[in-house]
Amino acid sequence: MSATRKRAGRLGGRSARHTLRSQPLAVEKRPIWPGAEAGQYKPLTESQVVKIYDAALDVLATVGMGEVPDVVTEQAVSQGCTADENGRLFFPRSFVEDIVAGAARSVSLCGRDPKHDLDVSGKRVHFGTGGAAVNVVDFATNDYRASTLLDLFDFARMADALDNVHWFTRCVVATDVPDEFGLDVNTAYACLAGTRKHIGMSFVRGSHVRPIIDMFEHVTGGEGSFRKRPFCKVHISPVVSPLRYGEDAVGVTLAAIEENMPINCIIAAQSGATAPAPLAGVLVQTLAETLAGLILVNLFSPGYPVIFSNWPFVVDLRSGAFACGAAEIALLNAGAAQLANYLQLPSGVAGGMADSKIPDAQAAYEKAISLSATALAGANMVYESAGMYASLLGASFEGFVLDDDIVGMALRLARGIEVNDDTMSLAAIRDVVSGPNHFLSHPQTMASMETHYFYPEAADRDSPAVWMENGKQEVNALVRERARTILNGHYNPEFLPDHLDRDIRARHDILLPREAMTKGNRVF
Amino acid sequence: MSATRKRAGRLGGRSARHTLRSQPLAVEKRPIWPGAEAGQYKPLTESQVVKIYDAALDVLATVGMGEVPDVVTEQAVSQGCTADENGRLFFPRSFVEDIVAGAARSVSLCGRDPKHDLDVSGKRVHFGTGGAAVNVVDFATNDYRASTLLDLFDFARMADALDNVHWFTRCVVATDVPDEFGLDVNTAYACLAGTRKHIGMSFVRGSHVRPIIDMFEHVTGGEGSFRKRPFCKVHISPVVSPLRYGEDAVGVTLAAIEENMPINCIIAAQSGATAPAPLAGVLVQTLAETLAGLILVNLFSPGYPVIFSNWPFVVDLRSGAFACGAAEIALLNAGAAQLANYLQLPSGVAGGMADSKIPDAQAAYEKAISLSATALAGANMVYESAGMYASLLGASFEGFVLDDDIVGMALRLARGIEVNDDTMSLAAIRDVVSGPNHFLSHPQTMASMETHYFYPEAADRDSPAVWMENGKQEVNALVRERARTILNGHYNPEFLPDHLDRDIRARHDILLPREAMTKGNRVF
Repeated sequence: MSATRKRAGRLGGRSARHTLRSQPLAVEKRPIWPGAEAGQYKPLTESQVVKIYDAALDVLATVGMGEVPDVVTEQAVSQGCTADENGRLFFPRSFVEDIVAGAARSVSLCGRDPKHDLDVSGKRVHFGTGGAAVNVVDFATNDYRASTLLDLFDFARMADALDNVHWFTRCVVATDVPDEFGLDVNTAYACLAGTRKHIGMSFVRGSHVRPIIDMFEHVTGGEGSFRKRPFCKVHISPVVSPLRYGEDAVGVTLAAIEENMPINCIIAAQSGATAPAPLAGVLVQTLAETLAGLILVNLFSPGYPVIFSNWPFVVDLRSGAFACGAAEIALLNAGAAQLANYLQLPSGVAGGMADSKIPDAQAAYEKAISLSATALAGANMVYESAGMYASLLGASFEGFVLDDDIVGMALRLARGIEVNDDTMSLAAIRDVVSGPNHFLSHPQTMASMETHYFYPEAADRDSPAVWMENGKQEVNALVRERARTILNGHYNPEFLPDHLDRDIRARHDILLPREAMTKGNRVF
Repeated sequence: MSATRKRAGRLGGRSARHTLRSQPLAVEKRPIWPGAEAGQYKPLTESQVVKIYDAALDVLATVGMGEVPDVVTEQAVSQGCTADENGRLFFPRSFVEDIVAGAARSVSLCGRDPKHDLDVSGKRVHFGTGGAAVNVVDFATNDYRASTLLDLFDFARMADALDNVHWFTRCVVATDVPDEFGLDVNTAYACLAGTRKHIGMSFVRGSHVRPIIDMFEHVTGGEGSFRKRPFCKVHISPVVSPLRYGEDAVGVTLAAIEENMPINCIIAAQSGATAPAPLAGVLVQTLAETLAGLILVNLFSPGYPVIFSNWPFVVDLRSGAFACGAAEIALLNAGAAQLANYLQLPSGVAGGMADSKIPDAQAAYEKAISLSATALAGANMVYESAGMYASLLGASFEGFVLDDDIVGMALRLARGIEVNDDTMSLAAIRDVVSGPNHFLSHPQTMASMETHYFYPEAADRDSPAVWMENGKQEVNALVRERARTILNGHYNPEFLPDHLDRDIRARHDILLPREAMTKGNRVF
């Protein structure tokens, strides 16, 4: 242990520095932030990117899409595409290239609070949740149990509390809500009540969109207020892999366009099951399918804000089960981000998923690898990046908090290294070599401490001696404590004031009792 | 849980596939291998690289090196360098550029068994251990205790057993060996007895080198055999940061050159302590210092095989302690690899270290991030990549096994995505779309299962239901079992046959009793 003590002793001023760090950091001094520009990692060479895009265009032109809703076929054919006698729809290369050229280059995602606005463009990286587990890892027992509306509200509160979760898509399904409309309404309600960050959800049917926007507008300033600052995006999955359209998405898409709600168009094909097994083949097919989704929206509204979400999934071919923590999923989603960046489309990918059932070492390395890879590849929106376990079958509160730190690490990587005369430090090097021979007391060092270095909230950096004195704890003890603090304390009733809440409950069957939501009612 | 069952059911043939996978894979079919070509991640832009190199040349020309051994000053001045009245030695830019131009472009590292030979060149990535913890996490109690010679032997055996540990540098210090010469001899002995992979060690003095090479040659075919296939490299740390030479390294360097032993020249400056705090400043200084090390060797033997090991370390500026698991360490070491690749020098960096004291979730994400970053940056040799905890103060057997899987994941990332007509899978896509609509039964899928996908040995990918039935285990239970199997079973007495062992013991005071080494004597 003596080595550590010696190092610590050499520095001096330890307690002063810890005191400093315990103050909240001014935003402009933070070492990480939403929207850091990345792209330093290119899993594919330029010529590989071109080959894959070329093959995807080939697939759309010659294999085409099946099971096409009539309204899509009509629009597409009127714009120069062709359909065969089996109903397959073929998109000429030039048509697809025109769609890409005319597509939105950026998407502004509003928070209910403008401080949470996100600029989805370039290679700016953001992290948030995705959908949708049907289980929760019970905080008390570690058992998997069916997720509830109250769980969804709790995850929304956690997302609101954690710095590195930049938006909140409903990450668990409220399995205790019996009917389709009730599910959508209550999901929207739980998100609205739990956070003022940008939210995301799906809608079972297009007809559910208007009443829910109406609910939103009741809270945010009346009719037309959502259209001005749409703080919720819709997740659609318009393709059934391989290469077929899904009927349901069209209605939701048209309803979303009506409301100016940004669309996150998700393709989630599975390697070796609904997509080829070789990684390049996965990317060819999923790129073609994500383009088919982009086409779907742009047929009806050219240039409409779409997030191009190509989320390749991996199947463990030994068992046929999802393997969302596989190394290959990191490669594929980083590749998907690179392809979207090549096409200059706002991108979404999936990262931070785990096969492990709990936030153990396996989960942590699985998550760290795909979060780092997708961040460095310059994905604009990394979905599923907090709280997801068991290949998306379960969500964990404790894990959500752990992941906030892992995302912070990935964001620090994404930010990269600034190289300029100041940071290259020649003056400091000269000072130190001709003087004290160490940098600890140099003014530059203290000034760099907060702005250049990211400190994970729950990481233990103590010496072995101190760690043993403290009972040889795993990091999960720290993470659990942090999760408990958030769950017990983080709730702002003003997100949904009483009088507006009463109006909403008068109009809709809200299954989350107001008293269950209030701070202090439950103890974790 | 039903979603998982459904997926598994759809595949069928699950047990057949598991049976297939239980056979060892032919080498040419493995999804990962030592020496995969990487470099897809470039933390610095080309112009940033040029700026940093330029600044490092400036440092060497104008700040120079202090505390220079006379023999170095003499050689350098005779070759055109200058020294001032304080003994600082300055290297003109053109001199340094000539040294770089004349330096070895590749290093061949031999295993005692040729199947373990490593080609250190280009952007080929290898992983192995580094030095040197003074503690071991006790297998039984999780306590930190002083590391022993027997521990070192056990780690050598583990390195021998694990596929993704490509060489073995003595990762713990045999703190129970009292004298300097005995420490070097016994360290060499424990490595020799434990593995036939390439090994690495340091020498306290140059005079220890010949007797130890003599011991090696007694085992590998007599006088001159080491020179032909040098299966051990020496680690030297010729610089005391900032920018001073260490006296000791010169003697060891000259002795190593005498024996044709490859030299791993390590710079390990610490951000904010012995190097500037801003990351770019760390890289400027450590690049200058690693060049000073390269110069040292090349002054005496131009073109000699040197691994250019720039290992920037990070200090947590709040406490002054090492923070080897920080995100910044991943950035810095990836940057160091990129700089070495730019100079076309065989590179070593540090990755896979953890601040956590045990293989928990914190350790796993810390390790995964730096292993992925350094691998993707195309570091030739990633040191410290298995078993190291507590910022290099401790080594863990259980962790060593966990890290083998994390390294496997990083290697899979490094390998990347092959894009060609076969892998792009257009034929398979056409087959499937016009046929069964799924890829599980397509011949390409089964053929890709082993060669394209990496399966971590100890990862749990079971469904939540199966996981709960099995007692809700963390991955550490699997890892521990694997560690136990290796420690109880993996030892080949033929690595050091009885009669040669007797000869060595007759000549040297070997403190590792033969009976303590034999398989089955100890139970973990």
